[in-house]
Amino acid sequence: MSQNVSIPKGTRDFSPEVMQMREYIFNTIKQVFQVHGYQPLETPSMENLSTLLGKYGDEGDKLLFRILNSGDFLSSTPEELLHDQTDYRKLLPHICEKGLRYDLTVPFARFVVMNKNTLQFPFKRYQIQPVWRADRPQRGRYREFYQCDVDVIGSKSMLNELELILILDKVFTKLKVNVCVHISNRKVLDGLLQKLHIENKLTEVAIAIDKLDKIGEKSVLEELASRGLPIEVGKQLLEIITLKGDPEKVLSNLHQLIGHTSSGAEGIKELEELYEYIKKSDINIEIIFDLSLARGLDYYTGAIFEVKAKDVSMGSICGGGRYDNLTAFFGLPDMSGVGISFGADRIYDIMTELNLFPDTIKASTKVIFLNFGYNSVLYSLPLLNKLRDKGIACELFPDEEKIKKQMNYANKKNIPYVIIAGDDEITSGTFTLKNMNSGDQQKLDTEKIIQSLT
Amino acid sequence: MSQNVSIPKGTRDFSPEVMQMREYIFNTIKQVFQVHGYQPLETPSMENLSTLLGKYGDEGDKLLFRILNSGDFLSSTPEELLHDQTDYRKLLPHICEKGLRYDLTVPFARFVVMNKNTLQFPFKRYQIQPVWRADRPQRGRYREFYQCDVDVIGSKSMLNELELILILDKVFTKLKVNVCVHISNRKVLDGLLQKLHIENKLTEVAIAIDKLDKIGEKSVLEELASRGLPIEVGKQLLEIITLKGDPEKVLSNLHQLIGHTSSGAEGIKELEELYEYIKKSDINIEIIFDLSLARGLDYYTGAIFEVKAKDVSMGSICGGGRYDNLTAFFGLPDMSGVGISFGADRIYDIMTELNLFPDTIKASTKVIFLNFGYNSVLYSLPLLNKLRDKGIACELFPDEEKIKKQMNYANKKNIPYVIIAGDDEITSGTFTLKNMNSGDQQKLDTEKIIQSLT
Repeated sequence: MSQNVSIPKGTRDFSPEVMQMREYIFNTIKQVFQVHGYQPLETPSMENLSTLLGKYGDEGDKLLFRILNSGDFLSSTPEELLHDQTDYRKLLPHICEKGLRYDLTVPFARFVVMNKNTLQFPFKRYQIQPVWRADRPQRGRYREFYQCDVDVIGSKSMLNELELILILDKVFTKLKVNVCVHISNRKVLDGLLQKLHIENKLTEVAIAIDKLDKIGEKSVLEELASRGLPIEVGKQLLEIITLKGDPEKVLSNLHQLIGHTSSGAEGIKELEELYEYIKKSDINIEIIFDLSLARGLDYYTGAIFEVKAKDVSMGSICGGGRYDNLTAFFGLPDMSGVGISFGADRIYDIMTELNLFPDTIKASTKVIFLNFGYNSVLYSLPLLNKLRDKGIACELFPDEEKIKKQMNYANKKNIPYVIIAGDDEITSGTFTLKNMNSGDQQKLDTEKIIQSLT
Repeated sequence: MSQNVSIPKGTRDFSPEVMQMREYIFNTIKQVFQVHGYQPLETPSMENLSTLLGKYGDEGDKLLFRILNSGDFLSSTPEELLHDQTDYRKLLPHICEKGLRYDLTVPFARFVVMNKNTLQFPFKRYQIQPVWRADRPQRGRYREFYQCDVDVIGSKSMLNELELILILDKVFTKLKVNVCVHISNRKVLDGLLQKLHIENKLTEVAIAIDKLDKIGEKSVLEELASRGLPIEVGKQLLEIITLKGDPEKVLSNLHQLIGHTSSGAEGIKELEELYEYIKKSDINIEIIFDLSLARGLDYYTGAIFEVKAKDVSMGSICGGGRYDNLTAFFGLPDMSGVGISFGADRIYDIMTELNLFPDTIKASTKVIFLNFGYNSVLYSLPLLNKLRDKGIACELFPDEEKIKKQMNYANKKNIPYVIIAGDDEITSGTFTLKNMNSGDQQKLDTEKIIQSLT
């Protein structure tokens, strides 16, 4: 029977070893969020389907996990459908009212709208919770995964964009992950469209940007031509899209190329202001302006961010941007916000590959008392309690097993110290403390043991 | 449109204010678990229905939230059912393969079985995750709520029971919640059944215990009689069931009353051993032996725990016990385990009612820089970064709004300090630090500001 036990495809158990590393990432991120004045929010795993549907495009709607209505789920289904179910799509709206959340952004917007009269704006929140997508599972893509979002809503100031960059700087410096932050701005791209008189070709531009890395300039130009963009226009488009690198240089090029368009001028002004703030802040990570970011061109309205790891080939590990109308879906217009989302799974993969987790997080128990039977246990309990009161993680092996087995347990769990309380120790009022790495051992009294371990 | 936005019945948003208090509880519990050598585990929100069904009784099966299969969910439904759906129960197994987890115990057992060859036993884990039940929502009962479980599996030693009591002691002492731990033992109740020659009447005994508080001894005796238990036997039953209080007294009574039965003797021995350990440990919370615990009599096999708050009328806020066959469901017999589960929602309610949350957790931002425009902002950024590097949570109000509005934001968010950098301060190379509680304010240089706030 036991071989049939399994978990759903695309889901994972996180063992204690993995949890310790994941929590190290989450705690680091959380601490940085808090120090920047962001506060935690949690929303329910389930949302009404009316909240979720239509927010992620048709493809997103298909990827929603739907919860079957409880009890007689057919009770609201029209009679005729009960006897003719050739099309599951017709039945769908009658049997499911709720779905699992698909991201943290839509629930955040829904929360803001429901609480608009009591929240203090700008409202700064972070949210670290799982999301669910009925995607085809594959390497690195899961059906349940954590998102780690930080957003501020209700302020148009570029200081918010700066703050997110400061957060990126602190998080990746602490995690020792070498990254580059790529920054673009949707308004600059709008200026580009204005300049070329192709305001209605945003989709084509997005596709061009997206394919540039994969198929090269020539093929992109051909594809654009096939979509009705003359080669000459395509070339001008690529000239600007491929601007990338040192912010001052990109800005000076942009001034010349699209500074005369209304959107372009606005976008350049935003990038300039942001760059002024960046220069005044003590930032360690590399920052480049990069107009080839295709991410979220359809919903971001201002700044666009993407973070890439430098020492390992992996897609973006963090992304975000500004959206002017996030809550409009729910009837609250004119609330501008900006946020970023950390890809915890990818950060975990990079840190594992580059061996960036500190050794200290791998042992959670610092010392284990071996079990030499009833008297030894009674003798050990007071010291055990004292050590725990000092915040030292201790175990007492619960069963009087062979010492070899107990030592094996300590080894496998990477416990660095062992305490032995045999007859000798009990008689002399001491304990033997053994360092599992060096093999050294010493007979010490209670006070000395506490001193050695704190 | 906005008034239609809502969340599913029985679910909750946790606002930053509530989150801070909930995290205070969770972090306190987690720290105590860790210091006792327990390690974190997380399992997927979804489990295969084959894992969940049949583990919680018929009632539990009905309360499972089922996930509709993705895509054409009718594709595995037999043709004849598609044209005749008068009974939803027949359709159910064909359209849902997965369900949301109902508790943390069954996923834990499933995890242990799937990883039995790599885990170190005794395996000590804690797990803090939401669970879902399609219960009728009512005050204090939710469809999504967190469980907070700590279990050890693979050891029969009573030292594990002691460790759980030590954990209870530390958690509730730290949270300042005044509690009493009630301890019973299933074997003692078996001994009682043996003594009265009613081994097949466990259900009746459980009902009697359960109703005692509500309907009183006389009515319970009548009900037992109606279920075939002579009044005399019922009286003897109640005499033992109502034993409650000081462990030594209860033990001495038990010796006399059921010490001669095999199960009774075994149960008494376990309680005695546990009490010996308790006496050797420095425990603050009140501990009583209480044979009237009805909790989990159908699945616990040894110790049974229940924790009640003393200063407020509320059901049990924590419960658990030993189960000898938790993993047998999944084909792995003879794995004894013991664990307890903390009711985070009830603990939260009690702490709110008794005002037990420390004031310090209510402000998450310590200091806010007012925004007096571009020059003030550029002047403030370096100090802002320095303070954050020291771990001080800071904000800079992002928009150049009226000072009254900015101060109002600081007040509403309980931010205790405000920093002002106007023209005067910029000229003199200082900042004005204002204490929002006392109203005091002082012009200080960067170093002094840092000193005042750390």
